[in-house]
Amino acid sequence: MPIHTLKLKTTRRTQLVNVTQQVQQAVEKSRAASGVCYVYVPHTTAAIMINECADPDVASDLEGAFDRLIPFEGPYRHAEGNSDSHMKSVLVGASQTIFVEGGKLLLGRWQGIFFCEFDGPRDRHLQVKVISKQASFPR
Amino acid sequence: MPIHTLKLKTTRRTQLVNVTQQVQQAVEKSRAASGVCYVYVPHTTAAIMINECADPDVASDLEGAFDRLIPFEGPYRHAEGNSDSHMKSVLVGASQTIFVEGGKLLLGRWQGIFFCEFDGPRDRHLQVKVISKQASFPR
Amino acid sequence: MPIHTLKLKTTRRTQLVNVTQQVQQAVEKSRAASGVCYVYVPHTTAAIMINECADPDVASDLEGAFDRLIPFEGPYRHAEGNSDSHMKSVLVGASQTIFVEGGKLLLGRWQGIFFCEFDGPRDRHLQVKVISKQASFPR
Repeated sequence: MPIHTLKLKTTRRTQLVNVTQQVQQAVEKSRAASGVCYVYVPHTTAAIMINECADPDVASDLEGAFDRLIPFEGPYRHAEGNSDSHMKSVLVGASQTIFVEGGKLLLGRWQGIFFCEFDGPRDRHLQVKVISKQASFPR
Repeated sequence: MPIHTLKLKTTRRTQLVNVTQQVQQAVEKSRAASGVCYVYVPHTTAAIMINECADPDVASDLEGAFDRLIPFEGPYRHAEGNSDSHMKSVLVGASQTIFVEGGKLLLGRWQGIFFCEFDGPRDRHLQVKVISKQASFPR
Repeated sequence: MPIHTLKLKTTRRTQLVNVTQQVQQAVEKSRAASGVCYVYVPHTTAAIMINECADPDVASDLEGAFDRLIPFEGPYRHAEGNSDSHMKSVLVGASQTIFVEGGKLLLGRWQGIFFCEFDGPRDRHLQVKVISKQASFPR
């Protein structure tokens, strides 16, 4: 069960990026038929979430909701001016767990996987690992 | 390691439903002695949490705390009037991971598993999967 | 894949405690070379998070941000005066998932694992489990 690393570039300070297709491609590379997929963010001002991908207004509303929920102005001690970014990342979390069946992510009908940038724009990484008892699809 | 799907009906817009027993029953059906249980919500306006189940006032207080934390009124763009429900779901998360030992969920003394409805009443599903090295209990 | 239980004592009501080294030691005891590590909190007024451990001001800022985000005063029904502690715990979560490679936690450059006390001071436990296909390091 190797780790697949995806690269992405964000363009705004707070930005939810739909990465569902890239994660699905990593699952296909793993050739796991049935198992569990973990997606992990190795950053401290970014996170990973699962939510609606059908209407892009939802992601846009969530971006606004995060910025209203956690104020940019503290009082904060950390000198980099991104303590709010750390807080948002903690609230969403560094990993997600998704079931895999038939070689596909078993997402709900409206669900997609979103990389959550909270201190962009930046170059970012996302790690994907799949565990599975069954060996794999035939080549 | 098949997936067990539980069905539930919620009756209020914001409602925490204790599903500990149903998840425990799914673990027993898996016949796993020792392993890891994942509980997954395939919806985008619901979530799954682990917290106190001894005093029902805690779940009631949490329902109120969510509704005060994330305002129903935006500004939101999404036209379905449930952007707050999506935000609450993201903050709680779509999955939980619990250890299994001796065929039982290894929850802490006061812990239970709660399905979190944030846009009810609705018919909902909850998916449970257990991974385990040891095969199973004897039949 | 046995469970390793770590013990800790907290000294303040809201306190983020860096437990990265203790979790790494539990991974080493498991002798897993490659796999997935789960860290689980069996309490309902504490949680586990992954965030920056390089600058201790970040943890301090997060402690303040939690206390400002979730008010100590309700309206709450639960009579123990710690409903805010339950809410903070739900927002952070009871478990974290981290990849293991080469016998080491695969944390990002600035990431550490923090036990989140939200109703201290108390004696607390933290459970660690590692799953792995490969057997182990040679003794």
